[in-house]
Amino acid sequence: MIEALVKALPEGRVLTDPDVVDSYARDRTFLEPGKALGVVLATTRDEVVTTLRWATEHRVPVVPRGAGTGLAGAATASEGSIVLSLAKMTAIRELNPADEFAVVEPGVITADLDRAAREHGLMYAPDPSSYEISTIGGNLATNAGGLRCVKYGVTRDSALGLEVVLADGRILNTGRRTVKGVTGYDLTGLFVGSEGTLGVITSATVRLRRAPLAPPATIAAEFGSLRDAAAAVSAIIAAGCQPSLMELLDRATLKAIDDWRNIGLEESTQAMLIGQSDASDGQAMAAMMQELCEANGASFVALSSTPEETEDLIGIRRMAYQAKERLGACLVEDVCVPRSALPDMISAIEAAAARHDVMICTVAHAGDGNLHPVFIFDHGTVEPPANVWAAADEVFKAALEMGGTLTGEHGVGLLKRRWLALESGPVATEVQQGIKRVFDPLGILNPGKAI
Amino acid sequence: MIEALVKALPEGRVLTDPDVVDSYARDRTFLEPGKALGVVLATTRDEVVTTLRWATEHRVPVVPRGAGTGLAGAATASEGSIVLSLAKMTAIRELNPADEFAVVEPGVITADLDRAAREHGLMYAPDPSSYEISTIGGNLATNAGGLRCVKYGVTRDSALGLEVVLADGRILNTGRRTVKGVTGYDLTGLFVGSEGTLGVITSATVRLRRAPLAPPATIAAEFGSLRDAAAAVSAIIAAGCQPSLMELLDRATLKAIDDWRNIGLEESTQAMLIGQSDASDGQAMAAMMQELCEANGASFVALSSTPEETEDLIGIRRMAYQAKERLGACLVEDVCVPRSALPDMISAIEAAAARHDVMICTVAHAGDGNLHPVFIFDHGTVEPPANVWAAADEVFKAALEMGGTLTGEHGVGLLKRRWLALESGPVATEVQQGIKRVFDPLGILNPGKAI
Ligand SMILES: Cc1cc2nc3c(=O)[nH]c(=O)nc-3n(C[C@H](O)[C@H](O)[C@H](O)COP(=O)(O)OP(=O)(O)OC[C@H]3O[C@@H](n4cnc5c(N)ncnc54)[C@H](O)[C@@H]3O)c2cc1C
Ligand SMILES: Cc1cc2nc3c(=O)[nH]c(=O)nc-3n(C[C@H](O)[C@H](O)[C@H](O)COP(=O)(O)OP(=O)(O)OC[C@H]3O[C@@H](n4cnc5c(N)ncnc54)[C@H](O)[C@@H]3O)c2cc1C
Repeated sequence: MIEALVKALPEGRVLTDPDVVDSYARDRTFLEPGKALGVVLATTRDEVVTTLRWATEHRVPVVPRGAGTGLAGAATASEGSIVLSLAKMTAIRELNPADEFAVVEPGVITADLDRAAREHGLMYAPDPSSYEISTIGGNLATNAGGLRCVKYGVTRDSALGLEVVLADGRILNTGRRTVKGVTGYDLTGLFVGSEGTLGVITSATVRLRRAPLAPPATIAAEFGSLRDAAAAVSAIIAAGCQPSLMELLDRATLKAIDDWRNIGLEESTQAMLIGQSDASDGQAMAAMMQELCEANGASFVALSSTPEETEDLIGIRRMAYQAKERLGACLVEDVCVPRSALPDMISAIEAAAARHDVMICTVAHAGDGNLHPVFIFDHGTVEPPANVWAAADEVFKAALEMGGTLTGEHGVGLLKRRWLALESGPVATEVQQGIKRVFDPLGILNPGKAI
Repeated sequence: MIEALVKALPEGRVLTDPDVVDSYARDRTFLEPGKALGVVLATTRDEVVTTLRWATEHRVPVVPRGAGTGLAGAATASEGSIVLSLAKMTAIRELNPADEFAVVEPGVITADLDRAAREHGLMYAPDPSSYEISTIGGNLATNAGGLRCVKYGVTRDSALGLEVVLADGRILNTGRRTVKGVTGYDLTGLFVGSEGTLGVITSATVRLRRAPLAPPATIAAEFGSLRDAAAAVSAIIAAGCQPSLMELLDRATLKAIDDWRNIGLEESTQAMLIGQSDASDGQAMAAMMQELCEANGASFVALSSTPEETEDLIGIRRMAYQAKERLGACLVEDVCVPRSALPDMISAIEAAAARHDVMICTVAHAGDGNLHPVFIFDHGTVEPPANVWAAADEVFKAALEMGGTLTGEHGVGLLKRRWLALESGPVATEVQQGIKRVFDPLGILNPGKAI
């Protein structure tokens, strides 16, 4: 069967060596993939079309893949599937400074696009912490968030139009090159966040924005209580400071970082809040944030005045994930609640950790109410043990009870499907399955993911 | 048939007097409606459910309606339909200042929500020029733009979640109360801009934003050439001024306003650009805009320093539509192009006006490249005459050739369906019809509109 595909594509596009295939079958979760038939390394849209026509003909499941940095198992290969990697399609086809957009292939690394834009005084705003390793295609397919999205919005807010290859090989163009437009239904929005279940993105027109005029001003505030830190977040937002970044780290996270890189963590520090303003009056805004932290009980607030100091402060946040990986295997979660529920959500996480005797380190995109409780378990274990799942279950349910959602930015993938019905309800589920059938009647695109 | 509906609903909900029905059958276009069976004035979600169940049972087309201020014929009643007015559902059910959202019924007048938000230091950003008369439901169903959307985005960017009654009476909840979230497909985005063809919005959770800290600073610049004015727009955007409003008026529009209200229009003025900044350093930004206008050939730039002066300057823009209505019947168009194509698009409009001997007055949300060429024809005429359509046809095609779209914010309705295929292409058309069938298999919801 796969011979026909090997023949239809240029030489070298299809990989079948079992070890190589396995390395393309996993994302950053612990999930064990099924055995895939092979990997296609597509270099053009037409190769994607060929692959999907072949898959339709032979009813072979296709798992689209960017860089495999996902945290939900959305790119985990299923048994008997073909992995379709877009990682080799890395051209920035157009970069239009006057109209502030770029047309890019899906394999472009997020930070590469941002750097290319900066050469023209622009930026590509969405910046998941993984931006040096994730692809634009993966960001679009997961609707990735990031640090700057408290000010600039998520990936959806930067997506203007897409070229998508549908399951049967037809080519669909969605959206436009203009900032506004309302002809027809919002198909661009439908594809963003659809986790490769509706079509394969082969090109995207994305919005660029003016890079800030001044270097950003940054604060890092230490608190003796997480609730005080959360109160400071609310005060900063309510005061209209419009931070371009607002990250919260709990003591467990700070401790992991301190053990690794010695950041001089005080005994009394329970939380750190890192805030940034990239506005033209950013220094004034940062000073206001500093005051509001102090007014809400911060024991110490550093205010950076140089780019180097700023890098040091942000660097602490950047170390969080790696510092945790040193402690054990990680189940990275992603609940999001209305911002005012942040303190209660933190308490609920602490309670779940205590009740089930699980180590949980939490960082949060606090300005958006989006928390990443990271559940640590033994490195050797393949699957998270029962107490980890029990604690996670409590955390999910608490988030939903507070009017929140299971996933703020990582997506559903395989990992959160168990809980999905709690959030979506039967009518939404039916409707989504109906939409899936419109685009992929045979159900060959990333089956079992997202919905 | 309608007797069953009259019985199923509380007294007074169904109107059948022919004159009354006719008054609910039209929007702000010249389009002649078909004869509707009656009007339902719904006051609760359950009444909407009852109406749609009845319509499904009897296969009666349903035309949802907000305030009927649409400019595309999207709320124009079709023959044998029921008009379902949401205008009586006007409750603001929740206004949450801490989490910056509101839950509103669809009949809430746009400006009323904004005023309610201002009491808490917040604002509802989307502000179509019709905001004193349009409804939130209509704004959502058309994805309305407005003056502030150059900075704050369109209605989609403020929609967090919806309650929708589907064609068969099922209730669908989409989205969430949090600013971020990626469970399942983006159904909220799918309903926004769907012009009442997928379901009836009975409640919406919308995002509020901090109201600006300082009163806005405003400039009005007069130019001897439209191209100079368009160049100033590009320069202002490129300089990173981030205007919160950036409107362009051509001489024909200014003349209409001057004839009506005497604004002291100079002989040499061909265009006026009105810009505003609501940033905390707005005065500095406005001064920068002033300089850039002068550098691009403005003959005179007024810079407002008081709220009263600002109101005067913005007032000129607000008069545009009424001033034109005095000249004749209006076909209001809505093309949108990449911003750098603004001068070429203006030239194309002038050429079409000259070639077909049509009076066209143009205003533009210039920061977004969104132009409203208004084609004037005789008051007495029911339909625009052939030369108006010929000129409009040229304008549409020119916009598409420049990489633009037929409609930036008003929607497709009935009015732009003729040209739709030029923009959407066959695959997108098929896919949209497939989506329509998922939500409305009998095709009773606003048939013949939007797609
Ligand atoms: C250290 C670390 C930090 C992270 N921080 C963040 C963060 O701050 N915010 C955040 O949102 N995420 C974060 N992530 C998660 C992850 O990086 C994002 O989900 C990212 O968007 C995935 O991109 P990718 O290219 O690796 O996609 P993959 O993991 O390869 O795929 C993800 C999904 O997208 C689909 N897909 C990929 N390409 C295409 C395409 N061209 N067409 C259709 N479908 C496609 C796949 O089928 C899959 O469903 C982090 C991950 C790590 C490891
Ligand atoms: C003077 C003037 C200025 C204008 N300026 C602007 C502008 O700057 N920007 C802009 O975008 N538009 C503008 N418009 C157009 C119009 O006001 C907008 O399209 C507005 O969003 C329509 O709201 P409405 O409540 O009047 O809706 P209607 O005209 O009643 O309906 C419009 C569409 O929405 C559907 N609909 C209404 N309510 C619901 C509901 N609850 N559920 C499902 N579907 C529903 C209808 O079926 C129809 O398809 C202007 C109009 C006028 C007259």
